[in-house]
Amino acid sequence: MPSSPRSGRRPGPTGTRDEILRAARAAFAADGYGATSLRGVARDAGVDPALVIHFFGSKAGLFTAAVGWPFDPEDEMRRVVAGGPGSIGINLARMFVRHWEDERDRSPIVAVLHVATGDPAGAALMREYLVEHLLRPLIAGLGTDQPELRAGMIVSQLIGLGLTRYVLGYEPLASAPADTVVELLAGGIQRVVDEPIANL
Amino acid sequence: MPSSPRSGRRPGPTGTRDEILRAARAAFAADGYGATSLRGVARDAGVDPALVIHFFGSKAGLFTAAVGWPFDPEDEMRRVVAGGPGSIGINLARMFVRHWEDERDRSPIVAVLHVATGDPAGAALMREYLVEHLLRPLIAGLGTDQPELRAGMIVSQLIGLGLTRYVLGYEPLASAPADTVVELLAGGIQRVVDEPIANL
Repeated sequence: MPSSPRSGRRPGPTGTRDEILRAARAAFAADGYGATSLRGVARDAGVDPALVIHFFGSKAGLFTAAVGWPFDPEDEMRRVVAGGPGSIGINLARMFVRHWEDERDRSPIVAVLHVATGDPAGAALMREYLVEHLLRPLIAGLGTDQPELRAGMIVSQLIGLGLTRYVLGYEPLASAPADTVVELLAGGIQRVVDEPIANL
Repeated sequence: MPSSPRSGRRPGPTGTRDEILRAARAAFAADGYGATSLRGVARDAGVDPALVIHFFGSKAGLFTAAVGWPFDPEDEMRRVVAGGPGSIGINLARMFVRHWEDERDRSPIVAVLHVATGDPAGAALMREYLVEHLLRPLIAGLGTDQPELRAGMIVSQLIGLGLTRYVLGYEPLASAPADTVVELLAGGIQRVVDEPIANL
């Protein structure tokens, strides 16, 4: 049933959308990414599940909107691997730096990291989201042995650099030009793509 | 002045030590690492500065105790670089994995990361501590060009792997044997030590 019981009016489209996002944030925080369903969020928000699909497309879209994520990571990751394994290093470094340079993209990523370091449920939320929407397309595009392990080493380099440069503000990394950071990252990532595991 | 005004008794040694730690946590959180002084903490705790030195040795020792850090990172880092640049990769990977494997060491590190992702003051606290007590001895031991930039790339790999394996619990990295993780890390770190910056 629609909310806004105090006014007695059905909420307009904006109110309904906000109501869904509020219910989604509460559900993701309480139950984690995996255990949250579109149907459950719709029920909590008092709307039809079809309306959630109408506004957000999918669970990933709902999460993206709930944390204020202004891009579609799955779509971007598919473009990163589209050129084949040989260009994953440079493509991924470019995509990563572009988003972290943008304050609107960076804030929700840091907020998710804060939640992830706060308690195990927050960590599970971030892990499940990462695996489903960033790592799955990366793993599919690696085309090597042990792609899951390699993807983990790659994502750890990205998270680490994001924290060190953009959150901690460690110098001279924090003030280095974006192009320099792309180069520094690209080589390390490409090495994890190319080298035999024993040589990493 | 000593606390415990309700009982009218001067606190015993344990009470005084706890009082100092409480004052230190409040000061580090409010003012950051750089702006917090032993003298100020002593004043807040109502004790003589000499007593703070007696209990904790230095500001680093006080911070270490305040966050519950059960090891001396500066001392460990000096041992990491003692064998020369050629063994920094393996030595640093071993030290890092040993501490992250131990729940008592890991918890305060994750707590500091949580604070660092929470607001700019928390980030500054972690950065200043890292720079002064982990990065300065590492930079001194690198013996190459651009040691500060290299140290930043190295610490970003360590932070990233710690988050991905131990906090997010990403598989198969989370369940990989500790020795495997040491090997995976050591190669990436040694490469940042050895290669010309243009090749990174």
